Amino acid sequence: MAAKKTNHSSPSILMHACSDDPDMLYFSQFHASDPYLAFTLGRRKIALASVLEFGRMRRESGFDEVLLLPEVQKAAARRFRLPKGELAGNRDVVRHLAREYGIREFLVGDRFPAGLALALRDAGIKLSAAAPGALFPSRIQKTAAEVEAIRQGNLGSAAGFRAVAKALRDSKVRAGGQLFLGGKVLTAERLRGLIETAAMEQGGIAQQTIVAPGDQACDCHDQGTGPIRAGELIVVDIFPRRPADGYWGDMTRTFLKGKASDAQRRMVRAVRKAEQLAIGMIKPGVTGGAVHRAVEAFFRKEGYEAVKDSEEPSGFFHGLGHGLGLEVHEEPFMRPTAKWKFKKGMCVTVEPGLYYRGIGGCRWEDVVHLVPGGNELISKAPYKWEIP
Amino acid sequence: MAAKKTNHSSPSILMHACSDDPDMLYFSQFHASDPYLAFTLGRRKIALASVLEFGRMRRESGFDEVLLLPEVQKAAARRFRLPKGELAGNRDVVRHLAREYGIREFLVGDRFPAGLALALRDAGIKLSAAAPGALFPSRIQKTAAEVEAIRQGNLGSAAGFRAVAKALRDSKVRAGGQLFLGGKVLTAERLRGLIETAAMEQGGIAQQTIVAPGDQACDCHDQGTGPIRAGELIVVDIFPRRPADGYWGDMTRTFLKGKASDAQRRMVRAVRKAEQLAIGMIKPGVTGGAVHRAVEAFFRKEGYEAVKDSEEPSGFFHGLGHGLGLEVHEEPFMRPTAKWKFKKGMCVTVEPGLYYRGIGGCRWEDVVHLVPGGNELISKAPYKWEIP
Repeated sequence: MAAKKTNHSSPSILMHACSDDPDMLYFSQFHASDPYLAFTLGRRKIALASVLEFGRMRRESGFDEVLLLPEVQKAAARRFRLPKGELAGNRDVVRHLAREYGIREFLVGDRFPAGLALALRDAGIKLSAAAPGALFPSRIQKTAAEVEAIRQGNLGSAAGFRAVAKALRDSKVRAGGQLFLGGKVLTAERLRGLIETAAMEQGGIAQQTIVAPGDQACDCHDQGTGPIRAGELIVVDIFPRRPADGYWGDMTRTFLKGKASDAQRRMVRAVRKAEQLAIGMIKPGVTGGAVHRAVEAFFRKEGYEAVKDSEEPSGFFHGLGHGLGLEVHEEPFMRPTAKWKFKKGMCVTVEPGLYYRGIGGCRWEDVVHLVPGGNELISKAPYKWEIP
Repeated sequence: MAAKKTNHSSPSILMHACSDDPDMLYFSQFHASDPYLAFTLGRRKIALASVLEFGRMRRESGFDEVLLLPEVQKAAARRFRLPKGELAGNRDVVRHLAREYGIREFLVGDRFPAGLALALRDAGIKLSAAAPGALFPSRIQKTAAEVEAIRQGNLGSAAGFRAVAKALRDSKVRAGGQLFLGGKVLTAERLRGLIETAAMEQGGIAQQTIVAPGDQACDCHDQGTGPIRAGELIVVDIFPRRPADGYWGDMTRTFLKGKASDAQRRMVRAVRKAEQLAIGMIKPGVTGGAVHRAVEAFFRKEGYEAVKDSEEPSGFFHGLGHGLGLEVHEEPFMRPTAKWKFKKGMCVTVEPGLYYRGIGGCRWEDVVHLVPGGNELISKAPYKWEIP
């Protein structure tokens, strides 16, 4: 490695992660299952690869330069006079890079490993952490290719909804309202299996899929278990990740086998209207908080009061939506107090919901992509929820 | 939250992660897709749950106590006199917990988020990071249930090998040695699809599966692409993760369609002998380094020299094996210099390999579970590699 002292004035971004880390995946455009070091030098991206990854990283990644880790480890060991035969650890490798390249300060992501961060600080290296989501601010505004990847992710969700609708349609209602499909009890677990297989066939891996019948949906992150009954609302939230590129889909539909009660019907319609209201408002320049609060006001006007921040919340008690991309939940988050403004290129979910024990839960969730003056829907599935 | 000052003398373990983090999954026995705070108080495990997770976490997790995050945020905001209506962030929540419970010092994992760790230190909180793998040292010695989960993970790998053997057997060799299956060219990508579907049917999600024919295998982490040809060694490394419990399988087999050359046959046999030699040596009390070095010596004796730490490595240039559990690569790692000793309950892969351009690559990988006086194999698949 040739010395390249340039005394950079802006901090060098430093990363140590595998490609499960969305920042690293975004930065490297490369899949690696073991964590590795990477940093910036001005606009250049440089990685340190083990012998196992070196060739592939040089061929396939988005790095401008790939250094062979053991060579840097040896150079660092010489510089810091480590005992003979001892390879330098990550702390000394980074100290060595700082000297070699004239780096005065490092900026790390919020989720950089604390072990290495604290060791570097203790060794006198100047290092600070970016706020959550702020290491690569460009991640929030998606490129056309990223929008397309999210749209593809949503195809996996849509395939899952088709599987649910078909299973409900093909089910027979037996005594006590229990559903039977192919002679066997239809359960949330069986529906989850059908959904995740359908998503897989679309190239998406769906895990922790929510299939929550009746009051189970009132516990928002309850995955749902047990037999499905006629006349119960079923919240189905499917968020598949595409291993090909790491982007997620995320959509929710609500179903009911048979005939809904008036209370259920009224609630389902109110949630759908809230979704349309929100989607109609979302355009560049509007704040996330304004849209969330408009939905809250709409629900109140319709008579749906919320109990928030409680051990037993009810009504509309969660965020209205969140950014979607290399993380299933990422910036920006639509919350009542959110002051950030929508920008062109953002991709966010819109997912109002209402939850009351005795009626059940309902949530509709779609994904919009911000375009000049408004947004375009990048999720598509029917809203037909009452399945005869 | 009632005050429970007890002035604990040992540090409190502090975590902030979702259950993608293997330490958090181990600690909580709970699946959550968003990160949350958790800590220990003596032997008690306490979590802070959002409204979305509170009910489910209280019912399903391994925590002794679950606090409702917004309540703690409000209490912290009062204690630190934040402006009215402002919720406390994670830094202030942890400072509040320290005061409330009389915690004098926190211990965090190596991969705890640096943003929060640095903010806590800057706020005067005493906090140190454990060495990699040292936050929960018990993770390295598996319980019977964990051993069983890994064995189940390996069933996914075995199903993948069966799919490969069948596809190769059913393939026809056409002009130029290219393989055709069902009238279409057999590629690494098609084999990967068959493998990952087969693993899925066993309840395992296999990603980044290696199907590396010919010289592609010499780049150890190359996933492999393009047509498969008769007479080429094919390294197939399958590591499925079971979403049900988070445990991994990890096995490798080598295949060849048609008839091998003498050089290929000699190399494949040498690697299998090296695997048997290593498995025969592994028992409580032996060091990981001793087993690795014995395999190196065996290969040298057989005439297989290694070029390590190079941009174009060859021979046996990677680690002999690694721990397997909630991470696909975890402590302990078998490397030439490893001084740690095998202990009862450890589950490690044993995966010698040889790689030479012109001959191709060969790796056999199985998983052993350490028992008193020796080990038992917890992976099972045939070693038949030459498929007519």
